[in-house]
Amino acid sequence: MTEDLEFEGIKESVSIIPLGGLGEFGLNIMVYETENDLIVIDTGFMLPSSDMPGVDLIFPDIHYLVERQEKIRGILLTHGHEDHIGALAYVLRQLDVPVYGTQLTLAIATGRLREYGVLGKAQLNTIAPGDTVELGDFTAEFIHVTHSIPDSVAIALRTPVGVIVHTGDFKFDMTPVDGKLSDVQTLARLGSEGVQLLVSDSTNAERLGQTPSERSIYGAIDNIFQKTEQKLFLCTFSSSLHRIQQFIELANIHRRLVAVAGRSLINNVRTASELGYLDLNPDYLIDARDASQFRPHEVMVLTTGSQGEPRSALALMALDNHPFLKVEPGDTVVMSARIIPGNEKAIGNVVNHLLRRGAKIYHERNADVHVSGHGASEDLKLMLNLLQPKFFMPMHGEYQNLMRHAELAESVGIPSENIKVAEDGELIHLTPETCEVFGREGRSGRVLVDGKPELELEDIVLRDRIQLSEDGILIPVIILHSDTSHSTVNDQQNGVVADETSVTVTGSTESQEPTTDNASKTGLNPGQIEIISRGFVYMDKSEELIEEAKEITRRVISNLSDEQKHETEIVQDEIRGALRRFFSKQMQRTPLIFPVVMRV
Amino acid sequence: MTEDLEFEGIKESVSIIPLGGLGEFGLNIMVYETENDLIVIDTGFMLPSSDMPGVDLIFPDIHYLVERQEKIRGILLTHGHEDHIGALAYVLRQLDVPVYGTQLTLAIATGRLREYGVLGKAQLNTIAPGDTVELGDFTAEFIHVTHSIPDSVAIALRTPVGVIVHTGDFKFDMTPVDGKLSDVQTLARLGSEGVQLLVSDSTNAERLGQTPSERSIYGAIDNIFQKTEQKLFLCTFSSSLHRIQQFIELANIHRRLVAVAGRSLINNVRTASELGYLDLNPDYLIDARDASQFRPHEVMVLTTGSQGEPRSALALMALDNHPFLKVEPGDTVVMSARIIPGNEKAIGNVVNHLLRRGAKIYHERNADVHVSGHGASEDLKLMLNLLQPKFFMPMHGEYQNLMRHAELAESVGIPSENIKVAEDGELIHLTPETCEVFGREGRSGRVLVDGKPELELEDIVLRDRIQLSEDGILIPVIILHSDTSHSTVNDQQNGVVADETSVTVTGSTESQEPTTDNASKTGLNPGQIEIISRGFVYMDKSEELIEEAKEITRRVISNLSDEQKHETEIVQDEIRGALRRFFSKQMQRTPLIFPVVMRV
Repeated sequence: MTEDLEFEGIKESVSIIPLGGLGEFGLNIMVYETENDLIVIDTGFMLPSSDMPGVDLIFPDIHYLVERQEKIRGILLTHGHEDHIGALAYVLRQLDVPVYGTQLTLAIATGRLREYGVLGKAQLNTIAPGDTVELGDFTAEFIHVTHSIPDSVAIALRTPVGVIVHTGDFKFDMTPVDGKLSDVQTLARLGSEGVQLLVSDSTNAERLGQTPSERSIYGAIDNIFQKTEQKLFLCTFSSSLHRIQQFIELANIHRRLVAVAGRSLINNVRTASELGYLDLNPDYLIDARDASQFRPHEVMVLTTGSQGEPRSALALMALDNHPFLKVEPGDTVVMSARIIPGNEKAIGNVVNHLLRRGAKIYHERNADVHVSGHGASEDLKLMLNLLQPKFFMPMHGEYQNLMRHAELAESVGIPSENIKVAEDGELIHLTPETCEVFGREGRSGRVLVDGKPELELEDIVLRDRIQLSEDGILIPVIILHSDTSHSTVNDQQNGVVADETSVTVTGSTESQEPTTDNASKTGLNPGQIEIISRGFVYMDKSEELIEEAKEITRRVISNLSDEQKHETEIVQDEIRGALRRFFSKQMQRTPLIFPVVMRV
Repeated sequence: MTEDLEFEGIKESVSIIPLGGLGEFGLNIMVYETENDLIVIDTGFMLPSSDMPGVDLIFPDIHYLVERQEKIRGILLTHGHEDHIGALAYVLRQLDVPVYGTQLTLAIATGRLREYGVLGKAQLNTIAPGDTVELGDFTAEFIHVTHSIPDSVAIALRTPVGVIVHTGDFKFDMTPVDGKLSDVQTLARLGSEGVQLLVSDSTNAERLGQTPSERSIYGAIDNIFQKTEQKLFLCTFSSSLHRIQQFIELANIHRRLVAVAGRSLINNVRTASELGYLDLNPDYLIDARDASQFRPHEVMVLTTGSQGEPRSALALMALDNHPFLKVEPGDTVVMSARIIPGNEKAIGNVVNHLLRRGAKIYHERNADVHVSGHGASEDLKLMLNLLQPKFFMPMHGEYQNLMRHAELAESVGIPSENIKVAEDGELIHLTPETCEVFGREGRSGRVLVDGKPELELEDIVLRDRIQLSEDGILIPVIILHSDTSHSTVNDQQNGVVADETSVTVTGSTESQEPTTDNASKTGLNPGQIEIISRGFVYMDKSEELIEEAKEITRRVISNLSDEQKHETEIVQDEIRGALRRFFSKQMQRTPLIFPVVMRV
């Protein structure tokens, strides 16, 4: 890795390795490393896309960190969103390193750490915006920025080669709900002192203008409160605490009681309220189970499910499957969240069902009920202009977002040769004079997780699933005779000992039988071919196809030599090949073909 | 069906049955029916969404039509888009009925009819806008409307209960590329005469304002031509002939030769050009295979793949896998089409790869390179105001689009009780005085098609595939003894003849063996249990899991009575149940479990 490179002066270089989040949304994790010390900023997860069937979560591959455990001085968290902290428990199961984050960020992270059983050993250090922490060659300064969750920070790293600013997620909200502005003074001071490298959020680089203030949705929501005569359901992400604060304020003004539905929402509301990040009068809170006991115009239900997640409260209500909440004609549902690309279909289904129940629906495409937490082009330019960095590297986003951010940087005067678009796993090497991207140096990648007692899913299993889902599976089951004496002769000739042929006869009585008849001589027990298929075909025509497939299998076996017949893998390969050609020609389909050879 | 209803006067009613397109995008097919006669408007297909793995196409279920074949007076086509004509070949294989459409619509349909071998028997009748056709109780008048494909028509049906106007897809383009305006005069005349029912396109009901003219993109594309110094790739749908006309005009102005890549595009350009719908100087056309022989700034490549389809020319170029076309640094790619919801991920992948090749990309989100062919709210209101119908029914769209269109109709003064939002398979009953929606009367549905030599896919196969893709498959293979004498005794006791137990022994020699040992007595050949899994787990832990599963299977079998052992289905059910409980508890996963029982 970096050790192999010729450095001009050992102290005078920093390696930067994005292990996730450059070339994709989510999975944010960045490594900053010198000869002696290494720090990590953020440890996020990612939710799978629809082309990853059965995958529940995606974590970053952290082999790079595990191999360098003794160098790691800390994990620094920018804010409490899952794409920045969701992999923390996974990482802490493998690494014993201190963690630094603001009060709310650590409070939100705590739940999952407890669930994963690593809370006890976690070394959690609460920092506040303005604090400075020494971490070996690095000194980290935490700078408050506005985002859709309170207590978010950017991080300025003083390093042997100069200051690196890592923005985390941010926008410049001029009227934040909690009154806490982005700390432009500190950013401007850093800019005057000189910033060697800016690493900045590209999520909304393709959007023009400035992202409106979180407060800008207040009027639209107020208007909906005024118009709604029955129950009002407000749906957002459980971490969107500024949004929730506004909903609660409006509920108080419009004299509606607040019912909170959904485990993560209940947890976050409780935590944020205890820590003072949410101003909440407990007298106005009711148990969601009791919501039906109040008159419809007295109730506001706060819930999740804005992405159409099938097990969310909103999706259950849409299908009238929720245990105690019901959407009825005249009710209003506000989906106050971004429609994340890829979720349109699921969200559309929920909306259609809610409409069928007679509800009125508001979402970001028909009302101003959502604003982003990420800065758009003008916010990004402002960050660039405040810091005036020598080098610039976009992060957080797909390649197109990174490229667009690079264009923005060029438009404000960063020389194009000083703008470095890197992707996951590449090594960026920063010196006082240079910033260069090397090819894939660090091991990076994705760990796919399936199921609750977390199973790491190998790529091959995912590939199988995708093929299974497209063309199904076909399993020819073939019973062959394990003709021990016969095979021994052949195996000796070939210098191969075919252990398996004798193993399966244990405990059976068939080995006593004579081997004189033709069937036994070929190793084939005629008629003993079954073909099972699932997810492949189901139709009148299939019986004929399966019969043909059996006949082909039979022919393949009878064409094999006796030696070949004793090698299970050869039998399987030959059958697989012949059937694949057959179905590909007949149906232009390639089911997963998995021959099972049993020996008796 | 309709015959069961009490009609006031048999001649004085029309039944309307949407077999597709109301509650979904695509699959447009509408039935208008009297006691004696039935006509169909459009026969479209639909492309599957990502939750339908391995499905290639979706056709409407046309059992309703097949049962009424003798009443059908014709299939009327509004225009040549696949969501309106894509199922025509499928329908004509089952029905011998005349088809009516404009010249271009029928020309585009012809290709697929030939491919499906139904062109010979198809009764194709070319009509022109302004024509009138008598079809039993219906008289159809074809009215020119502007849309993204030339030669589109709305259809006015004179029926025993008054005039029904079925708009097809439309917008009011005031400066159409081919100079042919929507025939507002005829629409206005119908409005003055009195329209009983308007059935109108809801695709863009949720968009505000008026859809801009197709001509409005000319400036943006011209600008891109001016800025591009290397090769220029223009990507759109093969049916977007107005778009293609503008590209060709601009190529001539900017002195670029036109290379057309992609079979459907080549066919459509040839057909449209022969019929005079495309003004094309053949001197400027080059074979796409020769494109590399010209200097980059002399070439414009016209291609498809705007939805990120993996086998499209554009996707192949993005991965540098195209046989003769190459995207190189400095080239420009324009994706001049709508980003269809659900395709964002695939399109994003193509865009990212093209950017990595150094191309400049324009799409509808960063440049004005696309306008819709469907009218937005103001176009829809104009249609309503021109026709001033007594009753209104929205079509083409998901439930939310239909509901929004209903709101628009109310906003221009249609009484809400005269607005009928129906969905696929419902029966709408129109009389001179009333328009009522009855529940699901007609059989409607979807036929899923898989593979080229079309296979109708049953729902159960799709369900299997979805389960396979999520949790994989687990196949326990169990070999049992077919102990004939033993089973006969038991079967006699139970009054059941278990044929299968004796069938599989044919040709084998094992039946001669003694049945005295315990293994044979239980019907179990110990050790003969194999468990195969695909797409399920692949990890260190799995060996242990599989061993446990084998042990459970063994236990299940030994707990079965002798009678049960001879019933394959019982053996399978018991094993399936036990393993399902095991894996669900151990892993919260439910793979498809498919036990195979072999008897020797």
